[in-house]
Amino acid sequence: MIPRIVSITGVKEWRDGVLRPLSDYLVGEEPLEILIGDHPLSVTMRTPGNDLELAAGFLFTEGLIAKHADILSVWHEADSGQNSANRVHVELSAGVEFDPRASQRNFYAASSCGICGKASIEMIHARNIKPPNTNCTVDPEVLCALPEHLRAGQRVFSRTGGLHAAGLFDMRGELQVLREDVGRHNAVDKVIGWALANDLLPLSNSLLMVSGRGGFEIVQKALVAGIPVLASVSAPSDLAVKLAREFGMTLVGFLRGRRFVVYSGAERLAAASALRAS
Amino acid sequence: MIPRIVSITGVKEWRDGVLRPLSDYLVGEEPLEILIGDHPLSVTMRTPGNDLELAAGFLFTEGLIAKHADILSVWHEADSGQNSANRVHVELSAGVEFDPRASQRNFYAASSCGICGKASIEMIHARNIKPPNTNCTVDPEVLCALPEHLRAGQRVFSRTGGLHAAGLFDMRGELQVLREDVGRHNAVDKVIGWALANDLLPLSNSLLMVSGRGGFEIVQKALVAGIPVLASVSAPSDLAVKLAREFGMTLVGFLRGRRFVVYSGAERLAAASALRAS
Repeated sequence: MIPRIVSITGVKEWRDGVLRPLSDYLVGEEPLEILIGDHPLSVTMRTPGNDLELAAGFLFTEGLIAKHADILSVWHEADSGQNSANRVHVELSAGVEFDPRASQRNFYAASSCGICGKASIEMIHARNIKPPNTNCTVDPEVLCALPEHLRAGQRVFSRTGGLHAAGLFDMRGELQVLREDVGRHNAVDKVIGWALANDLLPLSNSLLMVSGRGGFEIVQKALVAGIPVLASVSAPSDLAVKLAREFGMTLVGFLRGRRFVVYSGAERLAAASALRAS
Repeated sequence: MIPRIVSITGVKEWRDGVLRPLSDYLVGEEPLEILIGDHPLSVTMRTPGNDLELAAGFLFTEGLIAKHADILSVWHEADSGQNSANRVHVELSAGVEFDPRASQRNFYAASSCGICGKASIEMIHARNIKPPNTNCTVDPEVLCALPEHLRAGQRVFSRTGGLHAAGLFDMRGELQVLREDVGRHNAVDKVIGWALANDLLPLSNSLLMVSGRGGFEIVQKALVAGIPVLASVSAPSDLAVKLAREFGMTLVGFLRGRRFVVYSGAERLAAASALRAS
């Protein structure tokens, strides 16, 4: 299986009170595992394409090689139908030293969700994560107001222009907590850590709004916390959409002004719309 | 030393041909190491603040704990002047299982730059990275044109709205290569991997333009490749600015329209401006 860089999927667009079906393009996101010999060096979520450049560049910028000639060969694992396009092997030239244990200490563990070569989504299932609350609805007008609430809560840091934010809201759009960080994952982990410390988990009646993209790892973290509705101002990846659909989470993107796109779980929205129309 | 969340620094603003000094706010970025007992679990670049929430939330969303009571205690290492505010210890409750080796395989290694408890910048010095070429100048008008060139090069993917881009340009603003990815680091690694494969390193006469923030790790990767000028449309963190200044890299942010901010290495720009004025 060769992962696709761009895919098309059916979504729903909400615009000024009207919900209609739409086709949307999604960017590909898949884990890439880089191995030196038989030693797994790193796993990173990436958009498929130019994988050999990515592996070589990663080794160089992380200081594992000093020049191109340090790489004897670099190749994709032969396709065996096991996502092997997501695994790149590097053979270093004779005389290039590599200490697996030393390299371990130098890599930042940013986030987790799976082991390369297995489907990342299967890993979430293996962790026994349950689908979020299906007995809740969200009013589209509440969603439309979230970006402004998020920005208002960010006023202390807005001057730096360099922060991601994650805000937890109740279903009426009241802000419960807002956290900011240079890392989007960290802002979400801070919010969930706050909920954990206040014994509010699972967050079965909460909306999570993030300032950046709704990528795979953000969906994963929200699912673990039991959050039924995740909204972002930007685009999700295809893997984020697949994960949200698999677990029945409501995933909203491009939330700007009086328009947004629903990638998954539109029934929570439709119910609210129906209520409003009746 | 308690890391600061927001700091103020003197920068230069270029606006429509005029360069003037300005004070700017920078968001804090520091590595945080999370340890379970004596076992280092992860290191992440984060904005200081709510660190205990971050540690608890991370453990929960990554599946290492199932409930708040699984944490017996969580605390900052006592301040010894060794950046210990960047280290959080977690003691798990009796009966909560934790296998250090199993957790290792579950964490994505996203990027690297140092070991927590040592200054991240010292790690870059230890890797014997050299300051980039000082014998080059960049024309501000060339910089102003970069965002448009980057967007034009992204036209295949622009429909998804979900990608970061990194573009390598020569000093006249001619695009050499452009790579896109859901991960900003990956886009940069792909560009540098391309340069490595084409024996173009060090990139002593190149500009790197990235679509997102110019964070610490992006500056680090550009430095390793010998790139003298890094530009982004958004804000750098304080640690990114410190690193760029330490090595004399030209770091440009908020590059939008006919305005940008120079955080470091304005002399490459001043020389070009002087040339134009003469």
